[in-house]
Amino acid sequence: MEFDTIAAISTPMGEGAIAIVRLSGDEAIGIADHIFRSAGGMQLEEVQSHTIHYGRIIDPRSEETAEEVMVSVMKAPRTFTREDVVEINCHGGLVSVNRVLQLALNAGARLAEPGEFTKRAFLNGRIDLSQAEAVMDLIRAKTDRAMNVALGQMEGRLSKLIAGLRQEILETVAHVEVNIDYPEYDDVEEMTHRMLVEKATYIRAELEKLLQTSHQGKILREGLSTVIIGRPNVGKSSLLNSLVQENKAIVTDIPGTTRDVIEEYVNVRGVPLRLVDTAGIRETEDIVERIGVERSREVLKKADLILLVLNSADDFTKEDEQLFTAVEGMDVIVIANKTDLPQKIDMEQVRIAAKEHQIITTSLLEEKGIDDLEQAIADMFFKGQIEAGDMTYVSNSRHIALLNQALQAIEDVLSGIDFGTPIDIIQIDLTRTWELLGEIIGDTVQESLIDQLFSQFCLGK
Amino acid sequence: MEFDTIAAISTPMGEGAIAIVRLSGDEAIGIADHIFRSAGGMQLEEVQSHTIHYGRIIDPRSEETAEEVMVSVMKAPRTFTREDVVEINCHGGLVSVNRVLQLALNAGARLAEPGEFTKRAFLNGRIDLSQAEAVMDLIRAKTDRAMNVALGQMEGRLSKLIAGLRQEILETVAHVEVNIDYPEYDDVEEMTHRMLVEKATYIRAELEKLLQTSHQGKILREGLSTVIIGRPNVGKSSLLNSLVQENKAIVTDIPGTTRDVIEEYVNVRGVPLRLVDTAGIRETEDIVERIGVERSREVLKKADLILLVLNSADDFTKEDEQLFTAVEGMDVIVIANKTDLPQKIDMEQVRIAAKEHQIITTSLLEEKGIDDLEQAIADMFFKGQIEAGDMTYVSNSRHIALLNQALQAIEDVLSGIDFGTPIDIIQIDLTRTWELLGEIIGDTVQESLIDQLFSQFCLGK
Repeated sequence: MEFDTIAAISTPMGEGAIAIVRLSGDEAIGIADHIFRSAGGMQLEEVQSHTIHYGRIIDPRSEETAEEVMVSVMKAPRTFTREDVVEINCHGGLVSVNRVLQLALNAGARLAEPGEFTKRAFLNGRIDLSQAEAVMDLIRAKTDRAMNVALGQMEGRLSKLIAGLRQEILETVAHVEVNIDYPEYDDVEEMTHRMLVEKATYIRAELEKLLQTSHQGKILREGLSTVIIGRPNVGKSSLLNSLVQENKAIVTDIPGTTRDVIEEYVNVRGVPLRLVDTAGIRETEDIVERIGVERSREVLKKADLILLVLNSADDFTKEDEQLFTAVEGMDVIVIANKTDLPQKIDMEQVRIAAKEHQIITTSLLEEKGIDDLEQAIADMFFKGQIEAGDMTYVSNSRHIALLNQALQAIEDVLSGIDFGTPIDIIQIDLTRTWELLGEIIGDTVQESLIDQLFSQFCLGK
Repeated sequence: MEFDTIAAISTPMGEGAIAIVRLSGDEAIGIADHIFRSAGGMQLEEVQSHTIHYGRIIDPRSEETAEEVMVSVMKAPRTFTREDVVEINCHGGLVSVNRVLQLALNAGARLAEPGEFTKRAFLNGRIDLSQAEAVMDLIRAKTDRAMNVALGQMEGRLSKLIAGLRQEILETVAHVEVNIDYPEYDDVEEMTHRMLVEKATYIRAELEKLLQTSHQGKILREGLSTVIIGRPNVGKSSLLNSLVQENKAIVTDIPGTTRDVIEEYVNVRGVPLRLVDTAGIRETEDIVERIGVERSREVLKKADLILLVLNSADDFTKEDEQLFTAVEGMDVIVIANKTDLPQKIDMEQVRIAAKEHQIITTSLLEEKGIDDLEQAIADMFFKGQIEAGDMTYVSNSRHIALLNQALQAIEDVLSGIDFGTPIDIIQIDLTRTWELLGEIIGDTVQESLIDQLFSQFCLGK
């Protein structure tokens, strides 16, 4: 395929030591040569692939120095896009990096659309669609485990699984056709049916197995939307602070981390909690009053996890009871806080109200019980699978939707056989299963969908 | 010099396509080898300098893949620090980049302090102190012109100038000593005095010339602290919006730019305006009431530029007059806004109140007069020097302070000669001038100062 040459800033915006302007396309090296003067007087067209060169970016109109840079030259096809790629490492300031980008654009590059580098890697056949999608998941990963899922997907683990299933389907289709076209025995029809049932049952089981990972996969990818509720002064803010202080380490250990980016994510033993309306919890203590309002209930209903905090040094009140009613049917962990004070709450009453929900006792003040709480959260979402690092999770909503459709199609195959539907009609459902799985890896996917998918990427990727 | 091997994230924190973990030191390549598995099976110790290698970062305990990366190997001395440098380009997510950094630290690197890479470039003699300081200025530059000043300083323009002056001083000192030790003529004393006066006068003139650039230099570097004042509804918010909309282009042209970083900076024809208390202007309209309060006056006094907005479709009021009193003796531009409405203000009264301040008439609603305002701002701070792109500006407070001290020392030399002070006393002042100038480029500077200077850098630089 042939494309024009694109350019974009590939590092996060902000002040840092280094920023990268990346170019990709047939003219990438030529454009770079136009605005780069190597310290050694070399032309980039002449250098070897995968080498680094020190020099200056200049404005070709005036030959004035615009920036001091290191330029990496990577020639096709051993590159991210499979095209010629040039990376210009400049100083990580806004003016600096924009100036270099602007000169590259003046010299003939086009500003890349979001995701366009990865899109080219896909269109040029280096990676399939599910691998391309994993690139973005990897960048957005909030926990180690989410990153491992994305990494596995990027390395093609899901692709291989899907490709394997599609191969099975293809062989089955071929087999059925051979049987029909060249019936060597009298019982062809029965044999074909038997084989079909066997294969379709196997594929259904595989699809179901994959879909079973999707709940956890989605949580890993998108975080577990978590709401802390409780009466005023039961310790909601303390709970929030404990969770944040104990668990922010992995992502904010490093000075210079922008607080905004991570603040709302808390990594509890590999489970990314997205603390919804954190600011609200900090600032307002009138959650209980608001709970009666229909709108507040709706916010609650969208949560994946409710942490319901009680004050065990106080009576179990009517308001507490109302909170339990409001979160009925949801994933709830009950926290009886303030065990450091003389206990007053009737735990029997709490147990009745909590029903099947787990109850954790804590003294957030004395930092007791937080471990139990974290274990309860981890257990709730990763029962017995905490160490399954090598599992293939399905985490992407698009993939999940397609897997569900494929599952439906394969069930149509099975019920078709049951009802004695003619074999060529059954073939159609089987082929549909094959096509739907193909959409996951981008084998049978429409161009408009591809455009839409990549537009969700960040710039420069 | 010998140092341990340091590592840090060198790209801005946030989500982007690429992030870089940089290592520098004797063990940089060995440490990288420990956690890197090249796709081609090569050891980084064996590769040529300035080459790029594709592969995986692994956790050496489990050999599990931690990330897919490109590794750049640059061997001493042709590197930023003059030490062996390895740059690991990984996916630009928080988890990804922190994971790679953590593995590098586990493998024996030490987390770099802010500015430590640049500090090594200085300590290893690749750049002098003023050049090192320019690196940070370059990253923080808010306008093209500020970046050019930093770039010039980084390339050693200021260093050369200072070094030249020091050479002059050194030769003068030597000359004087020769004259004293080996008097060939009777009028040695007179000759020596004459030469000293000549040289010291020249050096004083050069220092004064440099210091003359410092006002503009500081503005370019730090931005012009600007306050918009005026009665309610005269158009303060409209003025702010006009300035922001018209001028934000250079730094925010590119999608993905974080708004927070630049919002308060507006680039008016190369003059960076730092709009103070912008949020305050947007939210409150009670500036006039607050003006009476002493504290508000103090905020005003710290401003470099006041934009005083009047409503020309209304009377010139007592409140307007109070505003003029509040900003007396400051740099003020008066803006008579709302020329689109029937005019009511007595311009003669305005002229009397404005005294020497320039008055611009605008209709912010109809977008008229904004050009005039911008020209007035540019003229005010860069009279006749707008195109002087190749000038050496002194912009750093530390440099300005040292230049002022050096100027004082050279004036002591001159007045010493006037007063007939013995030549060896005059020599002391001359040597002090030489030493003070040396501090600018880091030639005669204390270790504690160096530590303090570099600690102001951003991480990974």
